[in-house]
Amino acid sequence: MQDWNELFSQEELDIYDTAGFGRKSGIGRRPALLVIDIQYRTVGTRRLPIREAQREFPTACGERGWEAIDALQPVMRLFRARGWPVIYAYVAPKAKTDGGRLAQKVPAIMDIPPAGYEFVAELAPGPSDILIPKKHPSAFFGTALTSHLIDLGVDTLVVGGCTTSGCVRASVVDAFSLNFRVVVPAECVYDRTPTPHRANLFDMAQKYADVMPTEQAIAALKALPEPA
Amino acid sequence: MQDWNELFSQEELDIYDTAGFGRKSGIGRRPALLVIDIQYRTVGTRRLPIREAQREFPTACGERGWEAIDALQPVMRLFRARGWPVIYAYVAPKAKTDGGRLAQKVPAIMDIPPAGYEFVAELAPGPSDILIPKKHPSAFFGTALTSHLIDLGVDTLVVGGCTTSGCVRASVVDAFSLNFRVVVPAECVYDRTPTPHRANLFDMAQKYADVMPTEQAIAALKALPEPA
Amino acid sequence: MQDWNELFSQEELDIYDTAGFGRKSGIGRRPALLVIDIQYRTVGTRRLPIREAQREFPTACGERGWEAIDALQPVMRLFRARGWPVIYAYVAPKAKTDGGRLAQKVPAIMDIPPAGYEFVAELAPGPSDILIPKKHPSAFFGTALTSHLIDLGVDTLVVGGCTTSGCVRASVVDAFSLNFRVVVPAECVYDRTPTPHRANLFDMAQKYADVMPTEQAIAALKALPEPA
Amino acid sequence: MQDWNELFSQEELDIYDTAGFGRKSGIGRRPALLVIDIQYRTVGTRRLPIREAQREFPTACGERGWEAIDALQPVMRLFRARGWPVIYAYVAPKAKTDGGRLAQKVPAIMDIPPAGYEFVAELAPGPSDILIPKKHPSAFFGTALTSHLIDLGVDTLVVGGCTTSGCVRASVVDAFSLNFRVVVPAECVYDRTPTPHRANLFDMAQKYADVMPTEQAIAALKALPEPA
Repeated sequence: MQDWNELFSQEELDIYDTAGFGRKSGIGRRPALLVIDIQYRTVGTRRLPIREAQREFPTACGERGWEAIDALQPVMRLFRARGWPVIYAYVAPKAKTDGGRLAQKVPAIMDIPPAGYEFVAELAPGPSDILIPKKHPSAFFGTALTSHLIDLGVDTLVVGGCTTSGCVRASVVDAFSLNFRVVVPAECVYDRTPTPHRANLFDMAQKYADVMPTEQAIAALKALPEPA
Repeated sequence: MQDWNELFSQEELDIYDTAGFGRKSGIGRRPALLVIDIQYRTVGTRRLPIREAQREFPTACGERGWEAIDALQPVMRLFRARGWPVIYAYVAPKAKTDGGRLAQKVPAIMDIPPAGYEFVAELAPGPSDILIPKKHPSAFFGTALTSHLIDLGVDTLVVGGCTTSGCVRASVVDAFSLNFRVVVPAECVYDRTPTPHRANLFDMAQKYADVMPTEQAIAALKALPEPA
Repeated sequence: MQDWNELFSQEELDIYDTAGFGRKSGIGRRPALLVIDIQYRTVGTRRLPIREAQREFPTACGERGWEAIDALQPVMRLFRARGWPVIYAYVAPKAKTDGGRLAQKVPAIMDIPPAGYEFVAELAPGPSDILIPKKHPSAFFGTALTSHLIDLGVDTLVVGGCTTSGCVRASVVDAFSLNFRVVVPAECVYDRTPTPHRANLFDMAQKYADVMPTEQAIAALKALPEPA
Repeated sequence: MQDWNELFSQEELDIYDTAGFGRKSGIGRRPALLVIDIQYRTVGTRRLPIREAQREFPTACGERGWEAIDALQPVMRLFRARGWPVIYAYVAPKAKTDGGRLAQKVPAIMDIPPAGYEFVAELAPGPSDILIPKKHPSAFFGTALTSHLIDLGVDTLVVGGCTTSGCVRASVVDAFSLNFRVVVPAECVYDRTPTPHRANLFDMAQKYADVMPTEQAIAALKALPEPA
C-alpha cells in the first residue's frame, strides 16, 4: 500500500518531474513525533479486516490501522529513548454545540460511543506527552500546537496516525506552511482504502513532506546528534 | 477528468459509504467566489498541451487549465451580475527572504519570471474585487481572507482555480474548518494530471465540500433569493 | 471605575481626537455574548474586598468582579430571552506540559486549586451554551471560537468578564481584527485595580470597540429586530 | 515617559505583586528584531512636537517617535553586526476593499497620502530584511510572520516601534501566546501621549514581556554567545 507511484502513469510522473516538485526538505536538529487520531474509533478494538471493523465503528480502518500501529512502535521507542517530544492530537468526544460543516458532511462522526475516543493501548500517551484535543482535520487548527512547538524549539515533525487523506494530510500542509520540516514514515500512516492513501502520500511527497520508508526515517533520526 | 469515482474500486466506495462520508453541506444565503492562482504561470500564455506549456513555465497546467478558465466564466458572470463578492487569491512574486520549506520542496517556484505572476486576462480581477496575495497553499494561511469574509457576511465559498491537489485542496480544508459552506464546481478547478485531480475531488467531496458539475452549481446559485 | 477619561489630560484627549480615533462601529444584526474567565479564581468564592479575596486566590479581583457579575446578569437574561448565542471562554486546569511563557511571567497561575476553575454559580453556563477552553489571553487564540461564530452567523460580540487589561483586551483586539463588531458594556468587565481597567477601556474605545454604559448597550440590543 | 509605575498607586502595585505577576521570561539564544510601523505617517517627516506633526499626518506621534527612533539605532546596529534577523512590520497603502471595522473606528486611517507609508530613512530596511505588510494591529495577524520566525529558529523577539498601546501591544500579546520570549526596550517604543504609553508598558511588563531600559537590553543581547 506504500508504493504510491503505482497509482500514476509514467506521463504523470514526468510532468511532475518537469514541474520541479518532490525535492527534499531534510531533517533538522530537534524533531517531535506527532501522533494523529490513533483512537479505537479509527482502528476498532480488535485487529480485523476493515469491513468487519466497521461493524464496531463505521469510521474504523481495521487491520490497515493496526499495521501502522505496529510500524509506529519503534519510532515511538526511539523518541522516548532520546527524550524528544511526543505529541498526541486527537478528537475529543463531541458536544452538541460542535456541529457545523463536519456534522453535515459526516453526520456519523457526531455519534461515536465514548470507548471509541480512547487511545489505543499499544501506543497510549505517557505522563509527559503533550495532548492536543482538536475539532478539525488539522492538528494545528484551533489548537495550541504551534505554541508548544515553538516553546520546545522543534524544527521537524515526524507524523504518524490517520487518516492519510484526512487529518494527516491537513496537519502536514499546515506544518509545511509554518516552515517546519515534515517527515512521513509511509507505513506509519493509514487510511480506509488504498487509493486515497497512495494519492495523498504522493501529494505530500511532491509538495509538503519527505515521505520515506519507516526504516529509512528511523535511520535518519538515529543519526541526529545527541542534544548538547 | 471529472469522473473521479472511476479512480476507486467499488469496494473502496462501499467502505466510504459505510463510514458515512459524503453527505451534503448545501449552499447558504451569501456566497463569495474564491478564484485561486489563475495566473499565467499556472496555464501558460497560450492554450497548449501541458508538455508544451511547461516549456514556457514548468509549473503550467496547459490546456486543462484553459478549459477550467472557460468553465469558470459563466460562474464569474453570475457573481458579477448578482453583486456577490469575488476574491482573488494569488501568489505574489517571491522575495529572496521567502524561502523556507517551499524553496526546498519546489525550488523552481522561486524563479518564475514576472510575466508568470500576471492574472490571466480572460478572468482578470475588476476594480472592486478583493485581492489576497498569499505565500502558502491555503488562501487562508497568513492572509486577511477570514476577516474579509466575516466583514462581508459570507457563509458559502464557491472555489475555482488551481491546483486541485494543492492550493484548492488546502483552501477548501481551511474553509471547511472555519465552518464556511464550500462548493467546488468540478470543471472549474484544474491540475497538472488526472490522478491527483480526481483523488482530491474525491477527498473534498467525501469530507469537506459539495463537489458538483458546474452547471448544477450555477443552477443552485441562481435559485438563491436576491438580497433584501 | 468606568470614567476612564479621568485618567487622561485634556491635551491627551485632544491629540486622540485630532488623530481621528474613537468613532463608532455600531451593532450588527446577530450578536453573541462572550463571557470571559468568570471563574472563582478571578473573583473569589465570597464577595470580599480584593486584598481579602487574594488570600483565597492570589489572582482574585474581589468585589470589583462581583459588581461586574451583577451588571452582566441583565445582559445575560436578554441574550437568553432572545435565544442569541452565549459563549464561555475560560481557563481549564493546567497540565504540567502547559508551561511556556505564561509559567515564566506568572508562575502562580500554574498552581490554582481545582475549585478556582469552577464557573461562578450566578453566571454559570447553560446546556446549550458554547464552551471555549483556552490557554492564552485571547479567546480566539488556539481555539475554535472563530469557527463557531462563522457557523452561527454572528456579526457582533458583546464582551463581559475579566480582566479588562488581560483576556478581555486581547479577545477584543482579535475580534476587531476579524471584523466582528465589538460592544463592551463598561460595568460588565473587571480588573484588579482601577488604572489598568480605565487605560484599557480607553484603548478599546479609541481603537477597537464601542465601549458604553451597560444600560445603553442593553437598550441598543433590545432595539434589534427579532430574527425572521 | 518610561517610568510607567508612576501612573499607579502603591496599592495597585501591591495588588499586582500579590497576584504574582511581573516575573521574567529572560532572553533565549536566537533573537530577532521586530520593527513595527516606523513610517512617516507615525512620526511626520520632520522632528516636531506632536501637535505640529499632526498637521502633516493626523496620526503622527511627533518628537516622541523621533526619540524612539534615536534609541532604536544602537539596537539595530547590534542586530546587523551580529547578523541576527531584522523584520519590518508595516501598514501598506489601503485598497478601497480594506474597510471593515478599522474604517469605522478610525476613518482617517483610510486616507493617508502615499508619502506617509514610506519607511523613515534613519531606520529603513536593508536588502536582506524581512518585510511583513499587515492590515491589523498585530504583526502576526493575517501575515507570514510566524512562519518566518519558525524558519529562522528565532526564540526571542526584541520589539521597537509604535504605538505602544496599539500595534506594539497587540504584537507582543501574540508573540507571548506563541511562546516567543519578548523584550521591549522601553525607550524604543512610542505612542501619541504618555498615559496609554505607560499603561501599556505596565501591562506588558506584568504579563507578557520583559520591559527594560534600552541600555540593559543591549547589554543582555551583547552577552549572548556568538552562534556556533
